[in-house]
Amino acid sequence: MPGQLVLLRHGQSTWNLENLFTGWVDVDLTDQGRNEAREAGRLLKAEGFEFQQVFTSVLKRAIRTMWIVLDEMDRMWLPVERSWRLNERHYGALQGLNKAETVAKFGADQVKIWRRSYDIPPPALSLDDERHPRFERRYASLKPDELPNTESLKTTLDRVLPYWNNRLAPELNAGRDVLVVAHGNSLRALVKMLDGMSNDEIVEFNIPTGVPIHYQLDKALKPTSRRFLGDPEAIKAAAEAVARQTEKKN
Amino acid sequence: MPGQLVLLRHGQSTWNLENLFTGWVDVDLTDQGRNEAREAGRLLKAEGFEFQQVFTSVLKRAIRTMWIVLDEMDRMWLPVERSWRLNERHYGALQGLNKAETVAKFGADQVKIWRRSYDIPPPALSLDDERHPRFERRYASLKPDELPNTESLKTTLDRVLPYWNNRLAPELNAGRDVLVVAHGNSLRALVKMLDGMSNDEIVEFNIPTGVPIHYQLDKALKPTSRRFLGDPEAIKAAAEAVARQTEKKN
Repeated sequence: MPGQLVLLRHGQSTWNLENLFTGWVDVDLTDQGRNEAREAGRLLKAEGFEFQQVFTSVLKRAIRTMWIVLDEMDRMWLPVERSWRLNERHYGALQGLNKAETVAKFGADQVKIWRRSYDIPPPALSLDDERHPRFERRYASLKPDELPNTESLKTTLDRVLPYWNNRLAPELNAGRDVLVVAHGNSLRALVKMLDGMSNDEIVEFNIPTGVPIHYQLDKALKPTSRRFLGDPEAIKAAAEAVARQTEKKN
Repeated sequence: MPGQLVLLRHGQSTWNLENLFTGWVDVDLTDQGRNEAREAGRLLKAEGFEFQQVFTSVLKRAIRTMWIVLDEMDRMWLPVERSWRLNERHYGALQGLNKAETVAKFGADQVKIWRRSYDIPPPALSLDDERHPRFERRYASLKPDELPNTESLKTTLDRVLPYWNNRLAPELNAGRDVLVVAHGNSLRALVKMLDGMSNDEIVEFNIPTGVPIHYQLDKALKPTSRRFLGDPEAIKAAAEAVARQTEKKN
């Protein structure tokens, strides 16, 4: 029997709150985000989950969520692997811009295309833009052609899938229970692959923050069940809040 | 050039404060211990340290110290490896006993032998003692003959050195700067080996909590310098506080 898989999207970040496009910008959790992480940890502990391996991104909103979850579960000793391949989708030149202002400037239709099309990325960062990831020490070990300057959901999936194949799948095949703490779009990539969703389905699928998603898998690592942990009303509200984020604020 | 090495002993734990023998018991930091960790992180950041690899034990007082240090340095994304081989010395059947009461029961000379001899371990835990590490999930992947039921400093060194050889030394030889956040006796094992101390020297060498120890190494990984970071008076006071721990409390 393969191990069980739990996916968890980090809690609210400061830029979620300020309604800015975040992508690879390394913003922290808000107090509410920390509370969401604690609640996720409590839920996982109450349901008796044990994990043998934890994966997360190299962005602090995911890492802090993971820290809080392991602390709540009294499992700080679990092995953790961080990878840029689990990072949020890179939002290109939109990173740091206000979502409502971007809508005002480019129009809601264009922004919806960038946010919700499967394969159209936002405008790219230029190589000399100081926001380019090549200037960040944490990406120093990557090859130049691995470093994105913008990403669509499709190209996000292209860099998440090798990590699934090389790191996550072998752990699950070895019978180890795996927790992945990551981001809306890197988790969408995994959900699309696991559940065999179409391009249209996945762009409309909202992953709520702080709600663990529990997969049971068969020998081929195909899901036999998927469920969200916790209170159904709270989960619905969280998913709707995510979907509303591009609406203009007055 | 090999990388630089920094050793850091975790800050004050709840059982340090209560004067209990801790060993492998998984107690947390006190508020003072957290402050010591923050100060260590500030010092490392102020001195411009960068690390490429972090090592720690599977005990939460070391892991939380490491978390706080990485947070202060804004380096939460650094790769971290946890290993039982960096755990504190296992204190056998003394784990959980009060240090002053143990002195009253066995005599100061006997307790000094257990604490400060190089190769005489405290009484062993029996295999069916509920405190035995074989009942703990975090040690489930160890072979039975790797699991200690008590340790001297010598046998602590015996299990730390393979980890130095297999994991730390290769990172340093590859030019990577390494931070090790661990415990009084697992760090003593490293200091003895690095500085070529005699058995008598190392048992009298006190490692202060929360004070980073910075080694520069030559190609053979022999130290060319060793220094304690921070205020010399504070370091002296911290080392003396550790040395005083077996004195009876009135």
